[in-house]
Amino acid sequence: VTVADAKRLVRRTARDDHRAFLAEGPQAVREALLSGRTGRPIVRQVFATDEARRRHHDIVALAGGSGVPVQQVAVAGVAGIAGLTGTITPQGLVAVCDFVDVSMDQIMSAEPALVVVLAEVRDPGNAGTVIRTADAAGVGAVVFTDRSVDVYNGKCVRATAGSLFHVPITVGADIAGTVARLRDSGIQVLAADGAGESDLDQAEASGWLAVPTAWLFGNEAWGLPEDVRRLADRTVRVPIHGRAESLNLAAAAAVCLYASARVMRHG
Amino acid sequence: VTVADAKRLVRRTARDDHRAFLAEGPQAVREALLSGRTGRPIVRQVFATDEARRRHHDIVALAGGSGVPVQQVAVAGVAGIAGLTGTITPQGLVAVCDFVDVSMDQIMSAEPALVVVLAEVRDPGNAGTVIRTADAAGVGAVVFTDRSVDVYNGKCVRATAGSLFHVPITVGADIAGTVARLRDSGIQVLAADGAGESDLDQAEASGWLAVPTAWLFGNEAWGLPEDVRRLADRTVRVPIHGRAESLNLAAAAAVCLYASARVMRHG
Repeated sequence: VTVADAKRLVRRTARDDHRAFLAEGPQAVREALLSGRTGRPIVRQVFATDEARRRHHDIVALAGGSGVPVQQVAVAGVAGIAGLTGTITPQGLVAVCDFVDVSMDQIMSAEPALVVVLAEVRDPGNAGTVIRTADAAGVGAVVFTDRSVDVYNGKCVRATAGSLFHVPITVGADIAGTVARLRDSGIQVLAADGAGESDLDQAEASGWLAVPTAWLFGNEAWGLPEDVRRLADRTVRVPIHGRAESLNLAAAAAVCLYASARVMRHG
Repeated sequence: VTVADAKRLVRRTARDDHRAFLAEGPQAVREALLSGRTGRPIVRQVFATDEARRRHHDIVALAGGSGVPVQQVAVAGVAGIAGLTGTITPQGLVAVCDFVDVSMDQIMSAEPALVVVLAEVRDPGNAGTVIRTADAAGVGAVVFTDRSVDVYNGKCVRATAGSLFHVPITVGADIAGTVARLRDSGIQVLAADGAGESDLDQAEASGWLAVPTAWLFGNEAWGLPEDVRRLADRTVRVPIHGRAESLNLAAAAAVCLYASARVMRHG
């Protein structure tokens, strides 16, 4: 893989064609290399500047140990690493990785107790932050529906801070089919919605957070469409104690997921 | 105020010179106009495109009722509204507002039960999101320390989604003096830190979340410096149940603030 080939992966169509994406920076590259250790490597190639090579011996060694080629590249110019990254101050390391999403079958076979479903989430930074938060909260799987942002978008990958390589993710899911399947497996579906019938504290008091749960989160601007809300077992709102109209998506997800995690652990 | 004058306010030095900033979009302009209703208007002037004027009758009427001039401007060009906004699709409405920060004395005189202190938070989007979340969680005040991002930065103002006009905010605070003052007033100071001595669930079980609390949040990358952590009564970490290294700042703040709000309300 040349830098010119890799550069094409900043576009979604090229990513889909090659089933490959770019992960940038030492943390993401390290997590990508580690995530392949139990099977075949998911990293096809690492690009590193001279400085990054010298600074991150451990990563170079990790790549070497897995048989992943590390190619030295310039900082700037047409063959430089800057063209591969969306950041103003690139960190000198980029990995070309295989897609990591798995099938819904694989997700369900692990019998996850806590699942996140992102329905029509469009902002890559939000989507990535939710993946990172889901990982932190111990979520077993994240489902992207078919009208959501591309999980392999550079901004999304960056916002996950490596969690893209930790949490099982499935993409392109049909929302109605996903909800039906989760419910058939005995997983309760809670739709997070500013106009939810109960608030999160009431949901906890009613014992609803103690059972296996899939949290459904909608679009940043328009939330969940009525037909999607109706698919859920219940709609739950994060209580607004002050004068804000709403929470942003990633903040609402953090509050809901940590509430479920706390109740499931401590009752 | 002309568009050319207003345009200077995208720079911090000009904002500080004039003690004025720009609030963009119908939601922010409406909240700015409403926030001045109990005293003198904080909005000096509203710029509106022809389309925005026609679409947002209520806002034009609100401005008129408060004696705030509404000046019609073009969409693009040197005198157009596009130069005032940082967004790709400007929403056609911008208000020139007086600074809204208040003194620490004013904040303390309201005897807040829940306070946020942002120490060296540098990303304007994060800072704005924390203000919005703090508003939602019923926080009584947000304190920006002297080495934090400018609260009147356009990205920060946008991320607050109007909450900048709801929550009392003070800026330029000295961190040691602020912590001392909060403690002298009987407000417990909890430092949120990934290496905190207790996790949030333990803090709740120990009864620490039931008393008036100031939450201290540090920089996105390096957290709270050791000397600042030592100023706090306790350091508390959000539990990491999965494999994420940490939460992002705004997500951690959401989890901590909603935990305090829940315990203070329901015990």
